Amino acid sequence: MSQATVPDTTVGELNHRAEAAHQAYLAARDVPPNERKSWLYAIADGLDANSLELIDLADQESHLGGTRLAGELKRTSFQLRLLADEAASGEPLQLVIDHADPDWGMGPRPDIRRMNVPFGVVGVFGASNFPFAFSVIGGDSAAALAAGCSVVHKAHEAHPRLAVRTAEIVISALDGAGAPAGLFSLVTGVDAGAELVQHPLVQAVGFTGSTRGGRALFNMIADRPEPIPFYGELGSTNPVFVAPVAWRQRPAEIISGYLGSAAMGVGQFCTKPGLLIVPAGADLPALLAGADVGRRLGQMLTQRLEDGFLTALQEMRERHGISTLAGGAGTDELTVLSTTAENVLAEPEILQQEMFGPATLIIEYSRDGALVDLAEALDGQLTATLQADDDDDVDGLVRVLNRKAGRLLWNGWPTGVTVSYGQQHGGPYPASTASATTSVGTAAIQRFLRPVAYQDFPQQRLPAFLRDDNPPPGLRRRVDGVWTETGL
Amino acid sequence: MSQATVPDTTVGELNHRAEAAHQAYLAARDVPPNERKSWLYAIADGLDANSLELIDLADQESHLGGTRLAGELKRTSFQLRLLADEAASGEPLQLVIDHADPDWGMGPRPDIRRMNVPFGVVGVFGASNFPFAFSVIGGDSAAALAAGCSVVHKAHEAHPRLAVRTAEIVISALDGAGAPAGLFSLVTGVDAGAELVQHPLVQAVGFTGSTRGGRALFNMIADRPEPIPFYGELGSTNPVFVAPVAWRQRPAEIISGYLGSAAMGVGQFCTKPGLLIVPAGADLPALLAGADVGRRLGQMLTQRLEDGFLTALQEMRERHGISTLAGGAGTDELTVLSTTAENVLAEPEILQQEMFGPATLIIEYSRDGALVDLAEALDGQLTATLQADDDDDVDGLVRVLNRKAGRLLWNGWPTGVTVSYGQQHGGPYPASTASATTSVGTAAIQRFLRPVAYQDFPQQRLPAFLRDDNPPPGLRRRVDGVWTETGL
Repeated sequence: MSQATVPDTTVGELNHRAEAAHQAYLAARDVPPNERKSWLYAIADGLDANSLELIDLADQESHLGGTRLAGELKRTSFQLRLLADEAASGEPLQLVIDHADPDWGMGPRPDIRRMNVPFGVVGVFGASNFPFAFSVIGGDSAAALAAGCSVVHKAHEAHPRLAVRTAEIVISALDGAGAPAGLFSLVTGVDAGAELVQHPLVQAVGFTGSTRGGRALFNMIADRPEPIPFYGELGSTNPVFVAPVAWRQRPAEIISGYLGSAAMGVGQFCTKPGLLIVPAGADLPALLAGADVGRRLGQMLTQRLEDGFLTALQEMRERHGISTLAGGAGTDELTVLSTTAENVLAEPEILQQEMFGPATLIIEYSRDGALVDLAEALDGQLTATLQADDDDDVDGLVRVLNRKAGRLLWNGWPTGVTVSYGQQHGGPYPASTASATTSVGTAAIQRFLRPVAYQDFPQQRLPAFLRDDNPPPGLRRRVDGVWTETGL
Repeated sequence: MSQATVPDTTVGELNHRAEAAHQAYLAARDVPPNERKSWLYAIADGLDANSLELIDLADQESHLGGTRLAGELKRTSFQLRLLADEAASGEPLQLVIDHADPDWGMGPRPDIRRMNVPFGVVGVFGASNFPFAFSVIGGDSAAALAAGCSVVHKAHEAHPRLAVRTAEIVISALDGAGAPAGLFSLVTGVDAGAELVQHPLVQAVGFTGSTRGGRALFNMIADRPEPIPFYGELGSTNPVFVAPVAWRQRPAEIISGYLGSAAMGVGQFCTKPGLLIVPAGADLPALLAGADVGRRLGQMLTQRLEDGFLTALQEMRERHGISTLAGGAGTDELTVLSTTAENVLAEPEILQQEMFGPATLIIEYSRDGALVDLAEALDGQLTATLQADDDDDVDGLVRVLNRKAGRLLWNGWPTGVTVSYGQQHGGPYPASTASATTSVGTAAIQRFLRPVAYQDFPQQRLPAFLRDDNPPPGLRRRVDGVWTETGL
């Protein structure tokens, strides 16, 4: 369908868009933050004004349903405005001023002033499972634009018409708000994606998708003559650890909450909980039946995802010691597998095998220490969840998970990812290729900035943000080691 | 000599040290920042107490001279204490608290609290040209330890005995201060270096050295099953742009300052200015003679560096349009080459050809716009310097250099790199493999930390730094979007 409705971008067109994006970045990088904010607000307004059309298109191409898609679109325009506000606050600039100091401990210090500047053209790859929030004008694009970069977006082939229409709205909004032409553009097709990450004008890449696809892009970027940052959010099995007291107190609530989270979006969330680790001995079939495990799910996003899911599920079912507790091993209802902690510790790759779709694995443990051992055997994760009560001793487990995941949840479920100042969406590889960064929340802007220091510049030659006497009101700067707010 | 005096580390020994470093990191990562500070201070005190012996050893192996080495050692212990103070201040933790908010714009927000945690074991490669400040316990090691990581240091073969003795002092100081055994260790030999960057327990690598060597390590790390951050500071030619009015006003001062900076440390600074770009028409031979260009220099650091330098110099001299203005094309005095901007713009790889040693290239330009054109043709740089007066119009040039370099200097010389809050030592590739980070200054600590978010954790289960009521006095936290100092 994609080929029929939206033709692939040629190499010549890609070069043209990258060059236009570079020129737009040059024209836009020094505009005042408030002006940049107005551009992002215009995009958010454009999405809101066209929400019915966008949701309808998205539902046709993703089968995710109007309610979910309306919520996701609301999140997407909220995200644009929050990141725009953050940029306007000056926070991402991380302004530091060290005045000259003849008595500095290592010898006289010159005047050094540092601020963050945007990287340039950013390539962004859309994800299929969030056609708004992690796609055309999702988190990566919003963060790159808020940072002062320009964006060339590689459309996901799962929603080509939505991608084109969203891009039209974005470009029209930017144009109406006075942003330079070319600041945002769209390219389509696998070849254009490969060309994009290798293009000399592209200075950073944001990606959300599979470990296999992400690693292929990572490798291409590592082979560039001049490597660039690759912010890839890849795979995660998002384990849930259930402590003994919590399990004794509320097994039905835990099973029901877990299955609801795992089945959300037909199991196609990057934070889908794929592993539930519980004390052995409960009547799992009865608990599953009580949690309405057999309810019908929607259609998966694409045939390719469905094929990949069925293969992963089949591989898991063929592993030693894996039983099927519920579900027909298809895509129309959730399949629940089970095994023991002993089996998993003997074959720890079970922990990393993501089944992206409606299936999940329950691991039963029967000895103290099994939770910590399983946690130690994990690869990097976006999230790790604890279900535990006051009397559960899980401090050692939390200490291990702190090394394994980007976000730890207490008695919650990982599938909701709020956009806020403190959010961390990322974790050690393969959860992310850059675990010191986040792809959700205001801190995502930092990924598209790098610092520049000015040494002994005359006041009038400095960027306005770094002058002694001319900072915008309320701007935070670190002056001679001490953070201060200026000009209030 | 290296092989004779210090045997290479075997793979078995390397594994042992990496495992010990991992255990030490586990034991140390949650100690209070003030305790970690005392460890770094103990190291600094150990260096100071053994300074005469260390300087003597360093001079034997590096030929850099006692005065320079005493200054470098002072810088090194200062750096340890400054980074220790920074860690103790809590600044690197970047604490953020978002309280739950039922009215959050995209839908109810859970309680999310984020802090930075240390990566784990860090591999650090010493540089030959700064046997203290960028070697065993130089900036990378200090930053990693300040972050709460452990360090396995790969000794540079140019100063094996100094490396071993420095490591002894570091380990003894850490032991005396109560740090866990294995927090710092040393390995030697090329094979150990290759094993180190591929070791599964190693979570990040810091490197200062050549583009060729650094790129080889970069490629090994990109091939790991689980890639890790590689903070490599590689090559830079550190151009100096001289504007017309400044050149007319003070050509002798500029030439003299430039040559002094270029010859410093026998031209073996990573910030050595390798290119001087001046208006055409001056009597360069007379200016050079007036600047005492022919004075004798010291010995280079190693035979290998000398061989590499002579090859690079020879290649440059054989390029079209390059003349020799001064010097015998050896290592005993500075060789000064010259060419025209037109020649360089026709063959821009001249701009990237680093001659690491006592040689430098003067480029004469004869038309407006040549400075900007040359700047546009540059690869990434650690520094770019302007020599300009009030009446020089260089705003366009500064705008271009802002995209090309990590630090811009006004009427200074790049070879001094102060250690401070605002310092930025790094730039677009090949200056650095991670241009959003710095290897000098307090911000260097951030390279060895990654964020972890805690969602809906009960107060008593949170790290103390993230609790509502128990922060150390004066700690900065961002609470619901607003930075505050707590508990003052």
